[in-house]
Amino acid sequence: MRVGVLTGGGDCPGLNAVIRGVVRKGIQEYAYEFVGYRDGWRGPLEGDTIPLDIAAVRGILPRGGTILGSSRTNPLKAEDGVRRIKENLAKHEVDALIAIGGEDTLGVATALSGEYGIPCVGVPKTIDNDLSATDYTFGFDTAVGIATEAIDRLHTTAESHMRVLVVEVMGRHAGWIALHSGLAGGANVILIPEQRFEVDQVCKWVTSRFRATYAPIVVVAEGAMPKDGDAVLKDGTLDSFGHVRLSGVGEWLAKEIEARTGKEARTTVLGHVQRGGTPSAFDRWLATRFGLHAIEAVRDGDFGKMVALQGTNIVRVPISDATSKLKTVDPKLYEEAGVFFG
Amino acid sequence: MRVGVLTGGGDCPGLNAVIRGVVRKGIQEYAYEFVGYRDGWRGPLEGDTIPLDIAAVRGILPRGGTILGSSRTNPLKAEDGVRRIKENLAKHEVDALIAIGGEDTLGVATALSGEYGIPCVGVPKTIDNDLSATDYTFGFDTAVGIATEAIDRLHTTAESHMRVLVVEVMGRHAGWIALHSGLAGGANVILIPEQRFEVDQVCKWVTSRFRATYAPIVVVAEGAMPKDGDAVLKDGTLDSFGHVRLSGVGEWLAKEIEARTGKEARTTVLGHVQRGGTPSAFDRWLATRFGLHAIEAVRDGDFGKMVALQGTNIVRVPISDATSKLKTVDPKLYEEAGVFFG
Amino acid sequence: MRVGVLTGGGDCPGLNAVIRGVVRKGIQEYAYEFVGYRDGWRGPLEGDTIPLDIAAVRGILPRGGTILGSSRTNPLKAEDGVRRIKENLAKHEVDALIAIGGEDTLGVATALSGEYGIPCVGVPKTIDNDLSATDYTFGFDTAVGIATEAIDRLHTTAESHMRVLVVEVMGRHAGWIALHSGLAGGANVILIPEQRFEVDQVCKWVTSRFRATYAPIVVVAEGAMPKDGDAVLKDGTLDSFGHVRLSGVGEWLAKEIEARTGKEARTTVLGHVQRGGTPSAFDRWLATRFGLHAIEAVRDGDFGKMVALQGTNIVRVPISDATSKLKTVDPKLYEEAGVFFG
Amino acid sequence: MRVGVLTGGGDCPGLNAVIRGVVRKGIQEYAYEFVGYRDGWRGPLEGDTIPLDIAAVRGILPRGGTILGSSRTNPLKAEDGVRRIKENLAKHEVDALIAIGGEDTLGVATALSGEYGIPCVGVPKTIDNDLSATDYTFGFDTAVGIATEAIDRLHTTAESHMRVLVVEVMGRHAGWIALHSGLAGGANVILIPEQRFEVDQVCKWVTSRFRATYAPIVVVAEGAMPKDGDAVLKDGTLDSFGHVRLSGVGEWLAKEIEARTGKEARTTVLGHVQRGGTPSAFDRWLATRFGLHAIEAVRDGDFGKMVALQGTNIVRVPISDATSKLKTVDPKLYEEAGVFFG
Repeated sequence: MRVGVLTGGGDCPGLNAVIRGVVRKGIQEYAYEFVGYRDGWRGPLEGDTIPLDIAAVRGILPRGGTILGSSRTNPLKAEDGVRRIKENLAKHEVDALIAIGGEDTLGVATALSGEYGIPCVGVPKTIDNDLSATDYTFGFDTAVGIATEAIDRLHTTAESHMRVLVVEVMGRHAGWIALHSGLAGGANVILIPEQRFEVDQVCKWVTSRFRATYAPIVVVAEGAMPKDGDAVLKDGTLDSFGHVRLSGVGEWLAKEIEARTGKEARTTVLGHVQRGGTPSAFDRWLATRFGLHAIEAVRDGDFGKMVALQGTNIVRVPISDATSKLKTVDPKLYEEAGVFFG
Repeated sequence: MRVGVLTGGGDCPGLNAVIRGVVRKGIQEYAYEFVGYRDGWRGPLEGDTIPLDIAAVRGILPRGGTILGSSRTNPLKAEDGVRRIKENLAKHEVDALIAIGGEDTLGVATALSGEYGIPCVGVPKTIDNDLSATDYTFGFDTAVGIATEAIDRLHTTAESHMRVLVVEVMGRHAGWIALHSGLAGGANVILIPEQRFEVDQVCKWVTSRFRATYAPIVVVAEGAMPKDGDAVLKDGTLDSFGHVRLSGVGEWLAKEIEARTGKEARTTVLGHVQRGGTPSAFDRWLATRFGLHAIEAVRDGDFGKMVALQGTNIVRVPISDATSKLKTVDPKLYEEAGVFFG
Repeated sequence: MRVGVLTGGGDCPGLNAVIRGVVRKGIQEYAYEFVGYRDGWRGPLEGDTIPLDIAAVRGILPRGGTILGSSRTNPLKAEDGVRRIKENLAKHEVDALIAIGGEDTLGVATALSGEYGIPCVGVPKTIDNDLSATDYTFGFDTAVGIATEAIDRLHTTAESHMRVLVVEVMGRHAGWIALHSGLAGGANVILIPEQRFEVDQVCKWVTSRFRATYAPIVVVAEGAMPKDGDAVLKDGTLDSFGHVRLSGVGEWLAKEIEARTGKEARTTVLGHVQRGGTPSAFDRWLATRFGLHAIEAVRDGDFGKMVALQGTNIVRVPISDATSKLKTVDPKLYEEAGVFFG
Repeated sequence: MRVGVLTGGGDCPGLNAVIRGVVRKGIQEYAYEFVGYRDGWRGPLEGDTIPLDIAAVRGILPRGGTILGSSRTNPLKAEDGVRRIKENLAKHEVDALIAIGGEDTLGVATALSGEYGIPCVGVPKTIDNDLSATDYTFGFDTAVGIATEAIDRLHTTAESHMRVLVVEVMGRHAGWIALHSGLAGGANVILIPEQRFEVDQVCKWVTSRFRATYAPIVVVAEGAMPKDGDAVLKDGTLDSFGHVRLSGVGEWLAKEIEARTGKEARTTVLGHVQRGGTPSAFDRWLATRFGLHAIEAVRDGDFGKMVALQGTNIVRVPISDATSKLKTVDPKLYEEAGVFFG
């Protein structure tokens, strides 16, 4: 049995831990061989491989990034993409594929596995934690930890100065990182993409916080939008840097708060810092177990499935379950956090 | 409505986050008043209180320990214990109690709530993660993170020298911390209390590791015991420091490995370092939500219940569910980790 | 003997450690009494004090910020400022002042100590490390550590994607934080305020880095300016957010790099995160020793002096030595680091 | 010009940063070639080399350990050692050697450089910071940081329980790590090898601490000895594990304190955790600069010299200056710290 492995989409702490889990168990317990495909779906599409054995996965557990490289190549949009993949898999004598990735990568795996009969097992990956069918994805806990530590540090300054501190964290379509880090960091306002915010309400919270104690900390997901967001976009303020990559809401909000409350505001934009570095212990545990269970699914011939976390158990679900619907923040959870606003 | 709050047993990162969640929501949403009881059950037993309001819980979210203090006082073993507690609750006009603690503390809450009609809500706490009915307890993730970071650091030395490195971590009766940190840290041997180990097998793993790459790292729970443990105890080697508090197995094992393999071995004993300091983001999130849901249970008059984590949901279960049975490591999980041994 | 203590200017990890050192030694060894002045020079100007004894400094060693509060109040610019301070010191029976602060705070101390005969001892403080006469100021090591950790994390992403990563760090007038964190983090380009940079040169380094290995990391001090900075300011791009507080160069540079090289660029703006949180061990050591030696200077009646670090020794220098000249990055040091550019 | 590089003695965070600094500057600025010698002096003795070029040093800056490996081999004690080294250097066409190491490694470099005419440049390395002629050695700041973080964590437990917490840190002959981490961590007792301690005095401090506030933290260097240490050794208590490697004083002291004060005591033994993992930003800066200056000394033909830190400058001193005398803790510094005892 020869198994191909690839990682697609944005990088995420834990990818290497998955690869290591797959390879260690596959070789030691099942005597499988492995083929590493480079840069996501570009690897099988172009036949670009690297050796993947015990030596290749040594020492990679604590390392962020992915030794296989990544890309956003979509073979379904490439000419003759499926045929070329089939040919390459045949050439490399690969019997099954493990695809580690998010919505796009897994979407391809669903199609290949279903319509085209290529045996695929999926491993869900998204730092934003917005994939359905799994309680958590690896990388998310690491990102929340980094954002929380940043908020912790800001409290010090908040205590000594009369400034509003705005922290922009990741989350284009779902506010999980903002919600968890904001709650864990004791933020005074948390703004998520799922609910458009009113700047005036933010200013009220900010002002009431100043009265009660000291300077407020506002956590805002990069994808959060003001209620009057369209107007904002029209006059170009957000558009200039915000439209394409949805970043910049932090800086924009800080200026609005300054203008409306007369208080100085400062912005921290964590950016890619959140998706880098060594995975947290939780993410290593989750990613390692995902790897062990993915190769078990291969052994069982259980294709078209994805490993997922439910409670403390790793289960298998159809890959399509994960990608059919974005897992956004439950309004009740956001409301629950609201007791700490202001 | 006046609610008493107490924390019992060993300290654990996240206790203060629970207290803050309880008080913030209780005051802001339900207009309750609070009475802080000092040092676990000693507080209501002796009528020892401290003020517990919004000001008292300000800034405590990221702080380890407990602002209420803790103890192992068991009022059921004190003369007239129940009567004295009832009198004090009446004197302080306390209508309900929230007891945050482990097996012993919650055991008292079960009894008081059941036989004696004192309205109690429980919040489970154990750094060892060995309480049933909840997927995780707060403090555990923090402890695993600290132990994992220590193992990470040891890899450096292991790569440069030919030494066996033994790390003793917490876990008297359950090996959760050893299992999770050992897996997350890439340990070569993990020893847990649930399964007596053979020193010769450990030495075999150690020796094979030396042959394959470099120096091995052995993670051993403080409560792990060799198969010939009784003999060991009899000749006093472990007994001198091990019997009373079950520590010392790390140092003992290092010497055995040295004697049997001829390789130098070094020990790290993390001790209380694992239960101190700021809680991880995960633990703050979990503890805060436990607090919010505990006060909700009080409001619902749902006494004799304990909050618990199931998947990503906080649910309520009978307190007695948590304490009736120790949650030990599932043999299958331990076996799953075995692929990385040696 | 009664000694007043105040902290002025921006907050900086280690302020509390200084205060603790002063108070512990002053009370335990010299039996002095202390008066805490609130919010820098505003305290003695307006007679605003807080108690400062052993209990007040308990547990503050690891805490960022300052228990005394801070401000930028300049009593020399206040009407009758000096007279009011003298009156308040007399009223509080304060015999000497310890002023902990940067250029502005110490400038006032110099004047009060010199022209107006108010016995002052100074403790230098600047997170930017740009005060003369001392090898280092506390807070700097902490800031460098935080920035370095962020750069470390970005390497992961840089390895997996083809993006330019720009990190904006503190340093308006001096590039010490950029230089040290850039060198410690293995950045590919470091830009400091002391030397105007050419965007085209930056793009050359970026491009050559892509060819050699993977994505480049650019560390830029907030005060760094392009050679054509005036033009930039004129057309308003920088001016809109850069002029007032000299921030924004990171975001601006990322866009320029994108436009000129065709590579995607992402920005991280660490902001106040760098000056918050617990001080590093080095900073606690330095700040504690500054405190111990400052109170010793008071005991010796050695006023108009400031404590300073020279090698591993704490010495005393005239306060004016520290404030007469900004300590900027030695061009030779910057050149030395240049071997790692590109 | 071909330059050999070796690392000897115990591992220490920063070794790789030195190697990288040497190689990057040597190749890019001087067009030198390099030969890596494996495992300290064993490398040139046995002619064991590894390639050392730009690719070999890529990504090693933040990694602990040493890519060259290390050993305690002393070629002066090997038969024909010097002749064999000379032959191997000739065979590899090596014109100069850079030896990175502590007392032993540098002692060999002194002899080879002086009596035997082998051109050597030294780079001082000791995690204990006990080499003369340099303000600090790299690795020390990292070790102090790790120990301080551990002490920070213990404070939490100390605040909630009535236990004595003993932390054993590195330092066989010099107490620098104990002194710095004890001061930075706010320990209540610090015990160093330079001054034999009286257990009764320790117990007095411990007891007075309990009265004043809460549980005391005792930091003890592994090489610290009680005044009645000989007696202790005679009855074997320390001897059993302490004689050979001077560890175990922490566990021993905890038991003595328990016996004499009746208070529970717990021990943390950090062990090799202190010398592992990524170097601190300070250590990376220092190690990188040591590397840059060492290769500069080679270019200048300035052999028999060692790079050293004096203030913020890197200077060159005779290697023999570093090794002639152990740099122990100045009694005045220890006395200065004494204000925080008890």
